[in-house]
Amino acid sequence: MSLKQSLEWRYATKKFDPAKKLSADQLQHLLDTVHLSPSSYGLQQYKILVVEDAAIREQLRDAAYGQAQLTDSSQVIVFAAETEINEAYVKKYIDHIVEVRGIERSAVADFENVILGAIGRMGEDQKIAWAHKQAYIALGIAMAAASEAGIDNCPMEGFNAGKFDEILGLKEKGLTTSVILCIGHRAEDDHYAHFAKVRKPANELFIHI
Amino acid sequence: MSLKQSLEWRYATKKFDPAKKLSADQLQHLLDTVHLSPSSYGLQQYKILVVEDAAIREQLRDAAYGQAQLTDSSQVIVFAAETEINEAYVKKYIDHIVEVRGIERSAVADFENVILGAIGRMGEDQKIAWAHKQAYIALGIAMAAASEAGIDNCPMEGFNAGKFDEILGLKEKGLTTSVILCIGHRAEDDHYAHFAKVRKPANELFIHI
Repeated sequence: MSLKQSLEWRYATKKFDPAKKLSADQLQHLLDTVHLSPSSYGLQQYKILVVEDAAIREQLRDAAYGQAQLTDSSQVIVFAAETEINEAYVKKYIDHIVEVRGIERSAVADFENVILGAIGRMGEDQKIAWAHKQAYIALGIAMAAASEAGIDNCPMEGFNAGKFDEILGLKEKGLTTSVILCIGHRAEDDHYAHFAKVRKPANELFIHI
Repeated sequence: MSLKQSLEWRYATKKFDPAKKLSADQLQHLLDTVHLSPSSYGLQQYKILVVEDAAIREQLRDAAYGQAQLTDSSQVIVFAAETEINEAYVKKYIDHIVEVRGIERSAVADFENVILGAIGRMGEDQKIAWAHKQAYIALGIAMAAASEAGIDNCPMEGFNAGKFDEILGLKEKGLTTSVILCIGHRAEDDHYAHFAKVRKPANELFIHI
């Protein structure tokens, strides 16, 4: 199946079958794909929490207006934006490039200065908003990767981010919840699976210039 | 190739071959895939501009610090967030659902009220930030779809959004530039193609709970 066909198959799953879990291989392949998500300057200004713990998931469900996907899905993936994007964060990233590519640090000095200049021009709120956007790219890649693999998925913004941060201990990790994706397999009786997909007509979405 | 392999092949293309254009079919398939991008409530709070006009692209390049991808790529895709997400916008969306699914309007009245409640709780800036995030999902899907099809791509945030809005006449359309994606084929001598890909080590990106 092409990605187009996979996305036609996909829908925002409302009812997961709690008995159908992903295999370890399926989960790993999905995470390996999301790992490759592009981000601004390659900074990957977020972390990705893969939540399986049943007790934690019950707490998350309570902080997400009781939505059953939080506990019925196979895993809850929480994308969390970095809140401390500073010189040290960039230094660590540049060090890592030097290590991976086996190059001199001087070869990426200009690149480091470009990033430092960019973040220096942003306020704290702007940097976090920027990190959230990168997390949404990863969300897009995750939905594409899951759908490609026949894994049902449901992205969710309807939760109390402050409570999520508390339950997951994110504040002390320099993180804040961005968006979540429940993954697993649809329940046979999820009638949402049968609704015709609705997208804007092409002539209202696309403008050719 | 799996999406994982496609994303391993992908890199942020710095130098496009201006002689290598996408075929009409390639472009259409890519747009058809991006058309399916998920969004909050399915609102698709953005439009997608596909810019081919050479004169406009020169202006865009000037508003993007002279970056050559703007003119050397096959197309420039501009994701533009909707700035007027209001009752009328939601009504139009709900009307469209009713039409596509052939259902009674009453069947989606609750859904409409949920959306109206959500946007009613947001300030104007929040709604636009929300629209930008949805545009970034579409960006993620677009990069996945392009890479799957062997189409090189380069996302860019480094441009003057105000100038882009002016050049593209977006303000009067109730839109503002979110992010752009240049698509086409890499030049043979783009040495960035040969750099080892750098991503955070898995144990620094993923947290298992």
